[in-house]
Amino acid sequence: MKYCFGVDVGGTTVKMGLFEFDGKIVEKWEIVTHTENEGAAILPDVAESIKQKIKKYNISLEDIYGIGMGVPAPVSAEGIVYDSANLGWKYKEVKKELEELTGMKAEIGNDANVAALGEMWKGGGMGEKNLVMVTLGTGVGGGIIIDGKVLTGAHGSGGEIGHICVNYEETDSCGCGNHGCLEQYASATGIVRLAKKKLEEDSRDTMLRKRSLSAKSVFDAVKEGDEVAKEIAVSFGEYLGHALANIAVIADPTIIVIGGGVSKAGEILLPYIEKPFKERAFFANLDVTFALATLGNDAGICGAAKLILE
Amino acid sequence: MKYCFGVDVGGTTVKMGLFEFDGKIVEKWEIVTHTENEGAAILPDVAESIKQKIKKYNISLEDIYGIGMGVPAPVSAEGIVYDSANLGWKYKEVKKELEELTGMKAEIGNDANVAALGEMWKGGGMGEKNLVMVTLGTGVGGGIIIDGKVLTGAHGSGGEIGHICVNYEETDSCGCGNHGCLEQYASATGIVRLAKKKLEEDSRDTMLRKRSLSAKSVFDAVKEGDEVAKEIAVSFGEYLGHALANIAVIADPTIIVIGGGVSKAGEILLPYIEKPFKERAFFANLDVTFALATLGNDAGICGAAKLILE
Repeated sequence: MKYCFGVDVGGTTVKMGLFEFDGKIVEKWEIVTHTENEGAAILPDVAESIKQKIKKYNISLEDIYGIGMGVPAPVSAEGIVYDSANLGWKYKEVKKELEELTGMKAEIGNDANVAALGEMWKGGGMGEKNLVMVTLGTGVGGGIIIDGKVLTGAHGSGGEIGHICVNYEETDSCGCGNHGCLEQYASATGIVRLAKKKLEEDSRDTMLRKRSLSAKSVFDAVKEGDEVAKEIAVSFGEYLGHALANIAVIADPTIIVIGGGVSKAGEILLPYIEKPFKERAFFANLDVTFALATLGNDAGICGAAKLILE
Repeated sequence: MKYCFGVDVGGTTVKMGLFEFDGKIVEKWEIVTHTENEGAAILPDVAESIKQKIKKYNISLEDIYGIGMGVPAPVSAEGIVYDSANLGWKYKEVKKELEELTGMKAEIGNDANVAALGEMWKGGGMGEKNLVMVTLGTGVGGGIIIDGKVLTGAHGSGGEIGHICVNYEETDSCGCGNHGCLEQYASATGIVRLAKKKLEEDSRDTMLRKRSLSAKSVFDAVKEGDEVAKEIAVSFGEYLGHALANIAVIADPTIIVIGGGVSKAGEILLPYIEKPFKERAFFANLDVTFALATLGNDAGICGAAKLILE
C-alpha cells in the first residue's frame, strides 16, 4: 500500500490529488462539478477520473490505501450527507456509494474540517495536535482538531464557527437566518459590509472611495496606511479575535490557523486578530499562536488524503 | 479485574467510591482534604484510604483495574497539574505520584470534565456520546464530551465554558480577571448579582425584598409566580442559553446537561435556558435536548471511575 487519493468537491470544480503515503503529491488535477440532476454525476465522475489515473500510473489496486473526500456539507460519522445546497445532493450515502463505484475504501468529511486537517498535516499548523482553523472566504468556515482528530460532532456540524453569534444587536440577517453571526463581519462579504457602513458614517477622505470595495481593496489600503481602512480592519479583527477567544476557551488549541481568500492579505492581518484575542482570552489560552494557512487551494486535497490515511 | 476506584478531590473533602466494573457502587465515603503545606498530604491520604478499603473487602490487587481521579484544576494529558489554588498544589505529577503511592494504574482529569463523563455514563446524559455539561455552582464549570471522549485540549482547560464572554459591555470583573464571563451571570453568585441589580433598578413589590438573596430564593420566588423573580430568571436564561447556542455550533452535541447547585431548582429551570437557546441556535443544533443532571454529588466519583475504565 503506497498511494491514496485526496478529493475536494466544490460547487464548480472537484480538485483531486494522487498522494504517496508520506504526503508527497504525485499529481493534482481538476474536473468539473456537474451539479445538475441533484448532482447525480459527481461521484461517478470522481470514480472514473480516479480509475484513469490508476491506469496512467499503472498502479496496482493493492498499493492504494483508499480515497479521502471533503464535501461542502455536514457529514455524519457514517459518511452520509443529508443536504448539500452547493452540490444539489439531498440524502446521499457518499462513503458507501464511492466505495461501491471504486472498490476502494473511502472516508468522507466536511470540507472546512478536512482543510484544517490538511493544514495540520502539511501546512500552517504542522506538528500541532490541537488546532483551530478559520477559513475566511465568501463565508466563514471552520475546522477544529482535538488531539489530532477532527471535531465532527453529532450532526457533522462541529466547528461551524462562522455561525457563532458575535453581535446580539445586529438587525441584518446572516445566510443561515440568524442575526449577528461571525460570518457577517469576518468573511470577504462581511468585510465589504463593514466597509460600506464605515464609508456611510465617516466623512473622512479615504482611498476606499475611489476603488471598488472588496476584502482585498480594504487590506491593500491598510498596507498603504489609509486610516479609515485601518479602522475597518480593527473592527473586523475585534469581531474575529473576540470570537476566537471564546472558541479557545472551549477547544483549548495551541494554534489558530487563518486561511481562505481573505488571508491572502498576508501577515498584516494577524495583529488585527491577535490583539483583541489576547485582550479577551482566558489566561490558560494566552500562549495560543496565530499562523497563516500555507497550503492555499491544496489544503482540501491534502486534508482529504490525511483523512483516509488516519 | 472486577473493581475500580473513583475519587473526586474537592477543596474541603475528597469523595471516594469503590465501583464494580458495570458501574455499581460498592461503597462511597469521604475523607478530609488537607490543603495545608501545599496540599502535600492529599495524595498519601487518598492512597491510604484506598488501601484500607481493599483490606476491608479483601480484594485481590489483580482484581482492581485502577483509580480514576477528578481534581479542581486543568490537567495535562500526562496527568500533571500546574496549579490548583483550591488544593494548594503547585506543579504536581499527580498521575505518577498516585501510581507510585498505590502501585495501581491511575487516570487524572479536570473535575468538571470528569463530572460530564459521569453524567454521560450513568446520569442525565446516559446513552449519549456528544454531550455538553454545565455545572452551575459558586462558579460555572463545564465539560464537553465528543464521540465519547472528554475534550481535554492542549492545556487541559478545554470546556472552560464559564469563561466565555457573553457581555462585552460589562465593567465588573470576573474572578479570572476578564469582564463579561458567563460565570458572572449564570453561577449561583452571578444570579444573586443579577437579582441585586434588578432590585436596585426596579421599584415593583417582590417577595425577594423580604428574603435573603440566593439562587435558591430567586427560583423559589419564580415557582411562587413572582414577576420580578421571573424577569431575573429570563435574564439568567438569556445569558446561558445564548452562550450554549455558541457552544453548540462549535461542539455539536446531542444533549446539554445542567448540573450544580443551581440545578436543584429543578425542571422549572430548563425552559428559561431552552427558549433563548432555540432563538439563537444554528439550524443544525435545533434538535439538541436539555436535561438536568441526576447524579448530584456522585457525578464526580462516577466520572472518575469511568475515566479509568475507558
